[in-house]
Amino acid sequence: MTHPISLGLDFGTESVRAVLVDSTGKQHGTATVPYAHGQITSSLPGGSEPLPPHYALQAPQDWVDSAAEATRAAIAQAGITADRVIGVGVDFTSCTMLPTTRAGTPLCDLETFRGTALAWPKLWKHHGAMKQTAHMNEVATARNESFLKRYGGTIGLEWFFPKMLETIEDAPEVAAAAEIWIEAGDWFVWQLVGGPADSLARSTCQAGYKAMWSAAEGYPSQEYFSAVSPQLAAAVENCLPGEMRSPGERAGSLSDAMAERFGLAPGIAVSTAIIDAHAAVPGVGAGDPGTLVMVMGTSSCHMLNSHTLADITGVAGVVDGGILPGLYGYETGQAAVGDAFAWLRNLLGLESFDSLSESAMQLPPGAEGVTCLDWMNGCRTPLMDGELRGAFTGLGLHHSGEHLYLAMLEASAFGLRWIVELLREGGVEINRLIATGGLPHHNRAFIEVYADVIGCEIEIHPSTQATAVGAAVLGMIAAGSQASGFSEIAAAATAMAAAPQSQFDVVSPRADRAEKYNGLYRRYRDLATAVADGL
Amino acid sequence: MTHPISLGLDFGTESVRAVLVDSTGKQHGTATVPYAHGQITSSLPGGSEPLPPHYALQAPQDWVDSAAEATRAAIAQAGITADRVIGVGVDFTSCTMLPTTRAGTPLCDLETFRGTALAWPKLWKHHGAMKQTAHMNEVATARNESFLKRYGGTIGLEWFFPKMLETIEDAPEVAAAAEIWIEAGDWFVWQLVGGPADSLARSTCQAGYKAMWSAAEGYPSQEYFSAVSPQLAAAVENCLPGEMRSPGERAGSLSDAMAERFGLAPGIAVSTAIIDAHAAVPGVGAGDPGTLVMVMGTSSCHMLNSHTLADITGVAGVVDGGILPGLYGYETGQAAVGDAFAWLRNLLGLESFDSLSESAMQLPPGAEGVTCLDWMNGCRTPLMDGELRGAFTGLGLHHSGEHLYLAMLEASAFGLRWIVELLREGGVEINRLIATGGLPHHNRAFIEVYADVIGCEIEIHPSTQATAVGAAVLGMIAAGSQASGFSEIAAAATAMAAAPQSQFDVVSPRADRAEKYNGLYRRYRDLATAVADGL
Repeated sequence: MTHPISLGLDFGTESVRAVLVDSTGKQHGTATVPYAHGQITSSLPGGSEPLPPHYALQAPQDWVDSAAEATRAAIAQAGITADRVIGVGVDFTSCTMLPTTRAGTPLCDLETFRGTALAWPKLWKHHGAMKQTAHMNEVATARNESFLKRYGGTIGLEWFFPKMLETIEDAPEVAAAAEIWIEAGDWFVWQLVGGPADSLARSTCQAGYKAMWSAAEGYPSQEYFSAVSPQLAAAVENCLPGEMRSPGERAGSLSDAMAERFGLAPGIAVSTAIIDAHAAVPGVGAGDPGTLVMVMGTSSCHMLNSHTLADITGVAGVVDGGILPGLYGYETGQAAVGDAFAWLRNLLGLESFDSLSESAMQLPPGAEGVTCLDWMNGCRTPLMDGELRGAFTGLGLHHSGEHLYLAMLEASAFGLRWIVELLREGGVEINRLIATGGLPHHNRAFIEVYADVIGCEIEIHPSTQATAVGAAVLGMIAAGSQASGFSEIAAAATAMAAAPQSQFDVVSPRADRAEKYNGLYRRYRDLATAVADGL
Repeated sequence: MTHPISLGLDFGTESVRAVLVDSTGKQHGTATVPYAHGQITSSLPGGSEPLPPHYALQAPQDWVDSAAEATRAAIAQAGITADRVIGVGVDFTSCTMLPTTRAGTPLCDLETFRGTALAWPKLWKHHGAMKQTAHMNEVATARNESFLKRYGGTIGLEWFFPKMLETIEDAPEVAAAAEIWIEAGDWFVWQLVGGPADSLARSTCQAGYKAMWSAAEGYPSQEYFSAVSPQLAAAVENCLPGEMRSPGERAGSLSDAMAERFGLAPGIAVSTAIIDAHAAVPGVGAGDPGTLVMVMGTSSCHMLNSHTLADITGVAGVVDGGILPGLYGYETGQAAVGDAFAWLRNLLGLESFDSLSESAMQLPPGAEGVTCLDWMNGCRTPLMDGELRGAFTGLGLHHSGEHLYLAMLEASAFGLRWIVELLREGGVEINRLIATGGLPHHNRAFIEVYADVIGCEIEIHPSTQATAVGAAVLGMIAAGSQASGFSEIAAAATAMAAAPQSQFDVVSPRADRAEKYNGLYRRYRDLATAVADGL
């Protein structure tokens, strides 16, 4: 008997991964293809003028090109015929967003705007909207906006509306030409299914975590937006067409043109998009409340389902059913993890950390006096301040790269400890930690330090493809119970999860080191407090 | 007519330089020879056991071997006969010190102690005496010792008596065998001239700046030392034989054996030693009060002569006639300058800064948000705390090595600004700044940043050999007026100074950058305060 297969497309910061999973969890093929232009941070494609330092853009055709290539490669690897694929699920970095015409053409693909930076998609980590974020927070706080409570009291620098407002203020000609503002994940899904703008599927997950939308209240009020900027209010009113749908809900059917391009059958189901990290929750089969799923890669995103609704200052978002139906979904995050280490590696002039990580792990806890704050890309949870920056203190002539490496790893772990303590103090139960994403697999020592610092077991999910598998689960569900055999997402998640629990690698804390980290954690928090206070 | 020639021997941290200067200032030959064992920081020669992290030792035979080789090379280069050399002057890093037998044999050269780290000479930057320094300061403060006022209220980690006490406490077998404790410069001069221990020449400069000695009060009292440690009191009483002499006073005559070894004439004058940095004051011909002479190399030492006696908290030492006769000599310093940059270069995996310094100098003041504290070897002036450590703050993903480089350079300059402001606020006039030593010549951009940050002109002395020439001036004076033609040191300094003033390179501040540094200086001081307060 042949089992139906779903395609998961997992859009990361540098590349897209395609994975083909059947309804029993068997993975038939997978392929990863980098974006031709990667992250655009130095100058625009075809240009030479340097971009401002906080810019991070992407090229929308890269997404389509790389996804088509990865899909074709995965199908070839699987050796299956395309008609066995019954659905497509899409997870995407967020908030990565762009302005388009009414027909969905990205403004940066119009000749007029090719040389205008703010016409290009802004990657999640684009930090150009500092001024606008501060202004939106000021107005929201002054008006005591109800949505603030859901986001720990602060609108994030990387979110949807600050990014819109930045373009309105800094590139008014782009804003004037923008007929649609849209999350990249929603845009990609729209490209797959086609159809009129008014019925395009917008993801409740992305809107809920990145655009201050809730099922109960919708977007923030026009009064609020008008107080921020009349142009922003008008753009929200006119340029956000579409219908809100949950991840796993069918966004439409794969168009003939896209089926041709991807080597798939036309008309198969395409799911509404989900934020990349959030896809890991179904991907690891963690449907229970109290399990913190950490997706660790370029940055880290932690997701937790709970029966409890709590307002916790600094916790970025809690969305009713935002991750799985019927549970409050909490999202926290660390803005730079893999990115911070890549930065350190470049800084140290190293090709890899191989030569250095082993000796770093021989050092005692505390890196012989070096303390690090890994806020090289700002602090997401709990301070929600993208303008904060990183630090090293305690540096002496006897320190070398290995000390900086261990100190940065400890900073990352301390950051997670802070988050876990905040959630627990807020009454949200955490009884299990699962690590997934690229980092834990390349570097078990990384998770060992995490376990020592947090002081509890951490399970490493054996697949690097949890988010991609999670996307495939959504594609399967979107295909409907008739085709897939699943009537609800939890059942599909359990059946298709990337690996059974017996294969999880359980990392236990080492008592002597854990003990020392209790004291060192205070040193980290003192530095964090001083830097947050403007040092 | 042939002019008499003096040999200056300039003992740095890594190498010794020999220079032959005649009484008109003409330099006939020069040579630099590194020490075979350099700085001993990893393990002892012939051993493999790692040294504790704060240790920095040297091998005493290296000093003799390298000096002899450099002297012979300088004579060969000069093409002179040895009989034209009438005197030898010696400057040395300080406090570099060692325990010896009554005959002057370094304990580390005895078979028994070759494997004992604390039997080896401690280099100035050896930081093993943290505990002992704290204890000595505590006792001195409690007893309100009068010597404290001359040193800004604090005994330094790198000074003579803490280093003695460290060995007494941590290697009692070495302390028991030590019949003499001596500064390396005094030991080397003793080796050149021979003679009994009771008449060896101890330098007032080294004793005054590094061993709490003054002409009026001598060493601290036996009561004080006994309160610190009875063993220390006994060692001070019994193991510091010799006679105090000023730099330029004749220590003795070159022995036959050493004359043979160095290729010099036996019986010529050997001057009492001077601290390396202090030799630069006669070496640049700066005999006037109000001129701050900055010797910039591995670390920086700043010397200033003044008619004013002021107690300024944090200024390490003021010694009556400590640099030149008849003036109060002020000494301040920065513990890591070249050393900090060498550390950064290693950290960044670079062979040199060439590729990076040019782009660093194109950055705006403030290194795009990066702030540095260059306390990688502690803070000498004004905090007198060798245990303080360095930091970088404001680090973002868009920063690279050039930002760290500029930030560290700015930190160094801010540190000097702090010192200049302290002296001026204390009523000590500063109307001229002269930079000398290895750093300013290799890197004019370095001094440009200094000028911008201090906001005034800085003159770069055109010779890299100011300290060596200053030593030669002392050798000439020690030879006596009959042989040298000079009856006082100031005249010799003027005549022999390494270059006339017209050849000084005057670096002026750039108004736009200087203006910005006024604000950035506060950012630096805020970080310094936070770190000094225990961050």
